[in-house]
Amino acid sequence: MSHLLRINGQRLVDSLFELGRCGALEGGGVCRLAATAEDKAGRDFVVARMKALGLAIRIDAIGNVTGIYAGEQDLPMVMMGSHIDTVATGGLYDGNYGVMAGLEVIATLQESGIRPLRPIAVTFFTNEEGVRFQPDMMGSVVFAGNYPLEAALAAKDRDGITLDEALSAIGYKGKHKPGDMAVDSYVELHIEQGPILDREGTDIGVVTGVQGISWCEFTLTGVSNHAGTTPMAMRHDAGLVAAKIAVFARDLAKEIGGHQVSTVGHMTFKPNLINVIPNHVVMTVDLRNTDNAELIRAEKRLKEYVEKTAQEERVTVSSRSLVRFNPVIFAEDIVTAIQAEAESQGFSHRCLPSGAGHDAQFMASVCPAGMIFVPCVGGVSHNIHEHTKPADLIAGGNVLLQVILERAQRAA
Amino acid sequence: MSHLLRINGQRLVDSLFELGRCGALEGGGVCRLAATAEDKAGRDFVVARMKALGLAIRIDAIGNVTGIYAGEQDLPMVMMGSHIDTVATGGLYDGNYGVMAGLEVIATLQESGIRPLRPIAVTFFTNEEGVRFQPDMMGSVVFAGNYPLEAALAAKDRDGITLDEALSAIGYKGKHKPGDMAVDSYVELHIEQGPILDREGTDIGVVTGVQGISWCEFTLTGVSNHAGTTPMAMRHDAGLVAAKIAVFARDLAKEIGGHQVSTVGHMTFKPNLINVIPNHVVMTVDLRNTDNAELIRAEKRLKEYVEKTAQEERVTVSSRSLVRFNPVIFAEDIVTAIQAEAESQGFSHRCLPSGAGHDAQFMASVCPAGMIFVPCVGGVSHNIHEHTKPADLIAGGNVLLQVILERAQRAA
Repeated sequence: MSHLLRINGQRLVDSLFELGRCGALEGGGVCRLAATAEDKAGRDFVVARMKALGLAIRIDAIGNVTGIYAGEQDLPMVMMGSHIDTVATGGLYDGNYGVMAGLEVIATLQESGIRPLRPIAVTFFTNEEGVRFQPDMMGSVVFAGNYPLEAALAAKDRDGITLDEALSAIGYKGKHKPGDMAVDSYVELHIEQGPILDREGTDIGVVTGVQGISWCEFTLTGVSNHAGTTPMAMRHDAGLVAAKIAVFARDLAKEIGGHQVSTVGHMTFKPNLINVIPNHVVMTVDLRNTDNAELIRAEKRLKEYVEKTAQEERVTVSSRSLVRFNPVIFAEDIVTAIQAEAESQGFSHRCLPSGAGHDAQFMASVCPAGMIFVPCVGGVSHNIHEHTKPADLIAGGNVLLQVILERAQRAA
Repeated sequence: MSHLLRINGQRLVDSLFELGRCGALEGGGVCRLAATAEDKAGRDFVVARMKALGLAIRIDAIGNVTGIYAGEQDLPMVMMGSHIDTVATGGLYDGNYGVMAGLEVIATLQESGIRPLRPIAVTFFTNEEGVRFQPDMMGSVVFAGNYPLEAALAAKDRDGITLDEALSAIGYKGKHKPGDMAVDSYVELHIEQGPILDREGTDIGVVTGVQGISWCEFTLTGVSNHAGTTPMAMRHDAGLVAAKIAVFARDLAKEIGGHQVSTVGHMTFKPNLINVIPNHVVMTVDLRNTDNAELIRAEKRLKEYVEKTAQEERVTVSSRSLVRFNPVIFAEDIVTAIQAEAESQGFSHRCLPSGAGHDAQFMASVCPAGMIFVPCVGGVSHNIHEHTKPADLIAGGNVLLQVILERAQRAA
């Protein structure tokens, strides 16, 4: 019975450590920036695994690699996936876990002699992290047709090398048109990269969607003056306005409530001297919400506050939007299936939105999509100390296995 | 009659432009950092003027230079002075004005055949600005015996050169012991370096004292986490605490009132990324007040707020005092004399404290001391666009002339 089917947990964990040798850093962690020699080593490792499983391999023009386990019928495929590129000081799990667990799912099915009705695929998307080339989640956004292939290929790194050149150099600029395959559904298994599951001791996160993201940069211009000789009433202090905005941003998250989060991560003062009133501040506000109407409300409230506060101090303000993604809501039947499977396997579980961006958010515009989260210790990610306990990795893999198998057995 | 005596205004203004050629910057302004070749050129220029006036020249071991016009009696001298070193992008007036006006006063007396009862001196103090060597106001603090000569001479610039070496190299390490002269009183004429006189259209600032200064640096340590995945309630945001402190610092100035000013000029976020909660912030708070009890109250209120606010966010905080000077109150008879003289010459005048530090604040511990301010356009100083109208320069010089002459005619 397929419900007694379980992945080979040790093999999954081992495969993550093996992949982690590609671009390994001294002291732990990995550095596999997109389309570098290290990324090539990681890609070659995963492709070799795909070939060992007898998968048909398709590489598209943006370097996305899909390994397909043929089904009994030529129906749209059920896809698992994620990415294997990392940040400069990445861990072993972010992205890699979803890819290696996908291959483990296929290996488990094959060993049990199960050929599903539909093809089952594993894809790793190019440049999810967006460290070397921007924008991030590039492979999936191009796959979904939401960003032009030509623009993505023309993106340059700091040395002026285009992604097109870099992909060609490592032999991963494929011939297929991105997105040119029939996909029935997409499920991405990922570490949470946040503290909620770990803090609560919950085994499985049933991801309901991805928060919408709004990044705004404000440039505040006041007048630089002597800290001792300038009366308070005569000041045009860009730093004070920036500080007020940062305090407001926190209050705003409380005011909006729900899933609203708000962060001032970047702030640069000029001239940044103890005894000089700052005349120039650049700062960012990162707003996220699962509800687009609420996110729009937060943006509006912030904008009003910034204008009012700058005016009171007679500081001028210019702003620009750096990033704006609408929230994504995952397919109800996939969310329900993940929930039911976690329950039936006896795992504690909870619904939660993803606070970070993932390839699944673009795949959600291609087909019904969903995500499964497992805890990561302390919520730490993008860090060489990123860690998820083997038992959690295996739990996630087993939930994925059953959800995928069930979807792959659906008739046309 | 001495009350009809007036300085040669054109000569004073010309002398400032001549001195301004030493270390002149393209586009205007000057750069004469302490004990550099440019400073030597400026010193040589002023010493040549002193010699032309027949003054006896004394150079002390910290490089302070005093030119003395002998009096009829060997009584303690009446001293004028300031500094001729500048910041990297300095103007023509800051410091230089007090020195050149002092020489103009002596020239005027000589031309009128007046030899005063007491000696009249002009001193320029070494390294008032404190850009190349710290602390600032070095020549006067050593002169006053408030800072050890050896420590000052051992101060190193960024290239590891000591002030001792630099002074010797330019030939201005003198043999006299700093402060080893009998000074009856000290009057420093200076541009305001603030906006008050210019904004009000007041001719003469009667300086009542120098604000006490308290500089505190706070280092805030929180936890760096993902801006999307970390719920608001789980954050330990060092940036938020810093912003709250900056807002509080402004409110505090209002709460304390009077002459209290408060500035957050320096703030550095780490990692300073849009989508990462800052885990490390270094910031400074500059508090100044003319009343030491009020300054102490402000320091206490700030400290309490910082501790409470850091604790609420579970951010740790360490603090260190960078600078702490008590307020200085100038001698009442000198303040009154400046006021009376401005009035009698028909100038509009007002009392105000100095928000910036000056050599006079250390001379106030040696003898009765005072300062005269003249407006500077827009309050702009430490800037190549620093400017004071010739009429204002001349007005200040004439007030100085009469105040000095009156004090120099006092019998023992």
